[in-house]
Amino acid sequence: MSARWERREIVLRTTATGHRLTAPVFWCHGRNERPLAYIQANVHGGELQGNAAILALFDLLEKEAPRGSLLFAPRVNPIAASQQIGDYVAGVYDFGSGQNFNRGYLYLTGPSRASSAPYVDVDAFSAVHRDATLTEIRDGFREALKAALHAIRESAATWGLDTRLEFALAIQELAVEADVVLDLHTGDRAPRYLYAPEGAVAATRAFGIPFVLEVPPRFAGALDEATFVPWNDLSEAFKRVARSDVRRFVDGFTVELGSMNAFSLAQGTEDAKRIASVLRYYGILDGEPDDPAYRISSCAVADYQSIAAPAGGLVDTVVSPGSPVKKGDLLARLVDPSLCGLPPRSADAVIEVRAPEDGIVILYHAFASIPKGARLLSMMTRVKPL
Amino acid sequence: MSARWERREIVLRTTATGHRLTAPVFWCHGRNERPLAYIQANVHGGELQGNAAILALFDLLEKEAPRGSLLFAPRVNPIAASQQIGDYVAGVYDFGSGQNFNRGYLYLTGPSRASSAPYVDVDAFSAVHRDATLTEIRDGFREALKAALHAIRESAATWGLDTRLEFALAIQELAVEADVVLDLHTGDRAPRYLYAPEGAVAATRAFGIPFVLEVPPRFAGALDEATFVPWNDLSEAFKRVARSDVRRFVDGFTVELGSMNAFSLAQGTEDAKRIASVLRYYGILDGEPDDPAYRISSCAVADYQSIAAPAGGLVDTVVSPGSPVKKGDLLARLVDPSLCGLPPRSADAVIEVRAPEDGIVILYHAFASIPKGARLLSMMTRVKPL
Amino acid sequence: MSARWERREIVLRTTATGHRLTAPVFWCHGRNERPLAYIQANVHGGELQGNAAILALFDLLEKEAPRGSLLFAPRVNPIAASQQIGDYVAGVYDFGSGQNFNRGYLYLTGPSRASSAPYVDVDAFSAVHRDATLTEIRDGFREALKAALHAIRESAATWGLDTRLEFALAIQELAVEADVVLDLHTGDRAPRYLYAPEGAVAATRAFGIPFVLEVPPRFAGALDEATFVPWNDLSEAFKRVARSDVRRFVDGFTVELGSMNAFSLAQGTEDAKRIASVLRYYGILDGEPDDPAYRISSCAVADYQSIAAPAGGLVDTVVSPGSPVKKGDLLARLVDPSLCGLPPRSADAVIEVRAPEDGIVILYHAFASIPKGARLLSMMTRVKPL
Amino acid sequence: MSARWERREIVLRTTATGHRLTAPVFWCHGRNERPLAYIQANVHGGELQGNAAILALFDLLEKEAPRGSLLFAPRVNPIAASQQIGDYVAGVYDFGSGQNFNRGYLYLTGPSRASSAPYVDVDAFSAVHRDATLTEIRDGFREALKAALHAIRESAATWGLDTRLEFALAIQELAVEADVVLDLHTGDRAPRYLYAPEGAVAATRAFGIPFVLEVPPRFAGALDEATFVPWNDLSEAFKRVARSDVRRFVDGFTVELGSMNAFSLAQGTEDAKRIASVLRYYGILDGEPDDPAYRISSCAVADYQSIAAPAGGLVDTVVSPGSPVKKGDLLARLVDPSLCGLPPRSADAVIEVRAPEDGIVILYHAFASIPKGARLLSMMTRVKPL
Repeated sequence: MSARWERREIVLRTTATGHRLTAPVFWCHGRNERPLAYIQANVHGGELQGNAAILALFDLLEKEAPRGSLLFAPRVNPIAASQQIGDYVAGVYDFGSGQNFNRGYLYLTGPSRASSAPYVDVDAFSAVHRDATLTEIRDGFREALKAALHAIRESAATWGLDTRLEFALAIQELAVEADVVLDLHTGDRAPRYLYAPEGAVAATRAFGIPFVLEVPPRFAGALDEATFVPWNDLSEAFKRVARSDVRRFVDGFTVELGSMNAFSLAQGTEDAKRIASVLRYYGILDGEPDDPAYRISSCAVADYQSIAAPAGGLVDTVVSPGSPVKKGDLLARLVDPSLCGLPPRSADAVIEVRAPEDGIVILYHAFASIPKGARLLSMMTRVKPL
Repeated sequence: MSARWERREIVLRTTATGHRLTAPVFWCHGRNERPLAYIQANVHGGELQGNAAILALFDLLEKEAPRGSLLFAPRVNPIAASQQIGDYVAGVYDFGSGQNFNRGYLYLTGPSRASSAPYVDVDAFSAVHRDATLTEIRDGFREALKAALHAIRESAATWGLDTRLEFALAIQELAVEADVVLDLHTGDRAPRYLYAPEGAVAATRAFGIPFVLEVPPRFAGALDEATFVPWNDLSEAFKRVARSDVRRFVDGFTVELGSMNAFSLAQGTEDAKRIASVLRYYGILDGEPDDPAYRISSCAVADYQSIAAPAGGLVDTVVSPGSPVKKGDLLARLVDPSLCGLPPRSADAVIEVRAPEDGIVILYHAFASIPKGARLLSMMTRVKPL
Repeated sequence: MSARWERREIVLRTTATGHRLTAPVFWCHGRNERPLAYIQANVHGGELQGNAAILALFDLLEKEAPRGSLLFAPRVNPIAASQQIGDYVAGVYDFGSGQNFNRGYLYLTGPSRASSAPYVDVDAFSAVHRDATLTEIRDGFREALKAALHAIRESAATWGLDTRLEFALAIQELAVEADVVLDLHTGDRAPRYLYAPEGAVAATRAFGIPFVLEVPPRFAGALDEATFVPWNDLSEAFKRVARSDVRRFVDGFTVELGSMNAFSLAQGTEDAKRIASVLRYYGILDGEPDDPAYRISSCAVADYQSIAAPAGGLVDTVVSPGSPVKKGDLLARLVDPSLCGLPPRSADAVIEVRAPEDGIVILYHAFASIPKGARLLSMMTRVKPL
Repeated sequence: MSARWERREIVLRTTATGHRLTAPVFWCHGRNERPLAYIQANVHGGELQGNAAILALFDLLEKEAPRGSLLFAPRVNPIAASQQIGDYVAGVYDFGSGQNFNRGYLYLTGPSRASSAPYVDVDAFSAVHRDATLTEIRDGFREALKAALHAIRESAATWGLDTRLEFALAIQELAVEADVVLDLHTGDRAPRYLYAPEGAVAATRAFGIPFVLEVPPRFAGALDEATFVPWNDLSEAFKRVARSDVRRFVDGFTVELGSMNAFSLAQGTEDAKRIASVLRYYGILDGEPDDPAYRISSCAVADYQSIAAPAGGLVDTVVSPGSPVKKGDLLARLVDPSLCGLPPRSADAVIEVRAPEDGIVILYHAFASIPKGARLLSMMTRVKPL
């Protein structure tokens, strides 16, 4: 029996001329409604490859009817995708508000900074549900989160729904349903790497992605955090009332599928295999996840460090993203011809940038010309095997 | 005896081609080094009028040698001032990072979110200075704040100074010296209005500005907060060790001098008079502050509310910024001709926006065309006389 | 008998996410299909007021059924209208191609620079139609122009329709039908003024707009030229075969309705009256055009001169747009505080800009801060009464 | 004897805050002042590689003192280099004026469209110099061109120097001195290719670049044309007075060094070798030019055709830039997931783009997401060996 599919459109923004910028949402109903995965791509306008992964998953699901269900939102941000000036898409920050499109989600178990939004009090919830079954807790808490989203939408009736809220609600109203959320991004110039919730080791290994940044359960606005932090808060609240059996029921991952501005259907097939393995882990697809083909290196997000360019200039990279480096290794040359004296020599134009610590270079700035102080590169430090 | 002047340049950014974007700083040494005012203008690239006020203050100081001293930084943000696309300057958000240029300052008595920055522990400071004189406390705390700034700069030696830090440090290294800080901004389409620290009533009245938003002592990244919140924290810490004589020694104000993209030397003379009155209040100029010519209306910043545009469209404003309105009053028409049916009638294109509460309309969106969800207007509610 | 209305949508652009950016077109069929006016507004994204005029014309046409017919395209450029960065719309140049949206139309009686587009050879046409009636000539030439547009669209089948062509064709396929075209724009900071074809004196007077720039019959890419220059070329071609009775049958005007970023429904009613007067002149509405209320000043477009800012700085304007000035009169102060020496004086910061000739100041740059070399203001010179 | 070097700065723009955006110019005086080459890089802000070539030429000139002289302007456009929004530089079009930075140069032997600029009348010049020696003609004509540039600068005294003129003059006042001009650009996603003046076969072969677009002697605003077209006009004028010995004395090339946003010092060494070979051809370096290592393919610029994207979407490229293709070959897939039906299949999302003719694919759009109608790719057609 093949899966049953539905499609609808969500509205992310309405322009000044009244055009509704929508994203298509494809809902694949498998043999069971749950577990349910929510997979979106391209929330940053220039991070394209996740769309190829989703298209390849469409084809995979035609061959392999899922045990659970899946919600897909490719090209989820039509606003950012059209922030094209000249040749390039500048899709991270909203041209209207400066807001990073992946930092404006709502923290449903804590008051959001920018709004007097309703939220779920996990301690009150755990007190009331102290003797409930795990299923009652899971279902009840999800209903509570959905009620909070509904209340936020309602409370905007008086003063209006601002662009950040409208965007966040459109996406979180889908994501809140899921048992696992995959937010498909890319790095700047980067290999595949992964932001994974602390402690989700087995799920993380199922991705088979060699570089992992472990995200602590603290909300800073991203979708992965907006997904798993409330469930982590719930688990902690139950511990405070002496129930240690309430684990974090929901996970959220930010999956970085290579470099910004790269798009390949062929690579998408490979990416879909990685994602399928995770879906097997979560019981959404049948079968067992793959064993990772590589040794997996991880570090805490706090140990994922960036070098701010010590000068403005052209960027001549030295190592391939994904390479281990030792403290003092040359990582990049910043080149400014105006530094040349007379007679001019190329060496005069070069400022060398070296590794401040041992680690793994994960990404370089997407463009090979940057002002002083922009992020030149980011690297994992205090790396350990996962 | 006339004042002694010094001038230097601060560097706010270095471009990819190595050009240093600087701002001129003019230091007017009066009869005494203190009290000292720091006055900057145009941190948002399109908010111009503060520069006219500073120029008029230059002329005023030639006639009237000050008792204290003053530091002026007109055109303090050459980065934002050049974010000009087509006809207009888009100067609020950094094109490179999305950062609001007035939300990236450092909280020197609390850990900054985006950096592991050193900071001053006010409780440790108050414990050590429990028996110190007020002068010792004031001078000692200022030195501690300066040491924190220095330590932040030093700690960036390893991984580099990012654009936000470089910008914030350049300005805060000046502002930290001051007894009062005036950050000269404008609204979008607005009258003169003022963000003033809660409780600074007499100083606030000295401005003679009819609309006042009272800022609580909580840090959210703006320069006024970065200025007065640490001193407020200090005062609170001393209260915790039972010394109630340590008042908040330093104030910070955001002064909104009319509308974005307006610039008038003649109006600058009027604005300089308002500022001179405040400088008299703080003892930087001789004489008494002016009595306000108008009744002053105030509300808490939390009661300063914005209407998000309920639809995309053209904006036909109905009341003048600064007008009191009653709940239900028509405030604006949003106009979208595509809403017209057949035969088309202008009324079909109009969505009326009415006041959700009683209050005073302070500003309208700067541009007369906006997408759904953008801030259409902001208004004071729960207004009370100051 | 009231007019019959139709509505359809034209597509101006399809985004990278497949969203079609459309404009609504309202066709008012009066007692006769001809004469036909085509009236569009807001082809530059920040020039808004024409939309108010069109809405007011809708209401006027409900009261007064027209003798001829009218085609309206308000908000005709949804691409430009969404080029909003921060607070402002930068709507003149296409973010993707740099193209001024009002310089990319096709010259249907001469080869377009950027395309090997088919065109109508007026000399061949006049040779063939040497003995035709005026009606045959008019109708035949219009069909020839339409055939050229059709052929251009067809010829793009192989290599594709680029964004400029797609935009131009969508609009010119409407405009080509008309006997008079009004393209509603605004100046930067300006009064109402008018670009009118050379020689169209009576029609021009019917607008009652006090400032007129006379456009020679030479194509430079704008819609008014794209409209009337082919018909002028035809008239000239017939003169070459000794028929002087073939006047220019079609006129095109660019109507500047005040300042960019101003929008007022109330002013729109006034603007609609001006346009209605012109429609009476052309026989599309019944009755006689109004006599102009003011003396009308005109000059050739070649005598409409711009002052490039002699320095970067803040702009303090001195005269109201629309004011007559004498050579040597102060027009603006450019203000750069970094020019101040010690002690700083406001006068040091000021560079005065004076009129190089007698004339009438028509517009100032829209923003009060500009780089060196940007258009500071434009003024009519060699002004004569119309 | 080693070369003597000088350095100076040219000013390309002065910002609204008075900052002068400059480029460094390095003048290498060899054994003779002539022949002289002018080599600039990065006039489009995102086209970086030419800077690496210039730096490598600096090192080469330290080892090998030149016979003639060279003028270098790396990073010649600091305006464009700072047009960075988010991660990318949008450096082709001036944010202020929409002007393509490589289309605003002055045509010194024909009236420029946008200015009433003085120019040199080649027919008058050839009449006067009918009996002059070739050296007198060459030197005299260069002086005439320089006088025209001077007159243009002077004539701007009244109404001011606009940004386009200021930029063009700063560069052309250098380039006019040269016997050969190399303007170092890059394609979007492209191999090395070359725009060469029609007929300059031997010089063109000296580059050893496999793909050549032949530029006819018609001015369209680019620097290569601004360089050689006046000298071509002169040659033609002398032919009209029956002197066929006056060949085109000066050549200009646009050298495309790979892809936008690529920068490699190592590749720069290779690029410098190509340029050195050309400098040998022109007698600026000693020795003979290299024989090209590859078969060189060429076509007329008119046969260099672009495919406008037939739909908006993600771009999955199929062939490597530089590949020959046959009519009907698949070149790219445009991918829009919103085209998927139910159940969704990846194939539904794909629009195939095939070669309309035989040819060689030279470049793909720089970004892998584009709106409908943007240039998807460009290819040479009617290719012939050079």
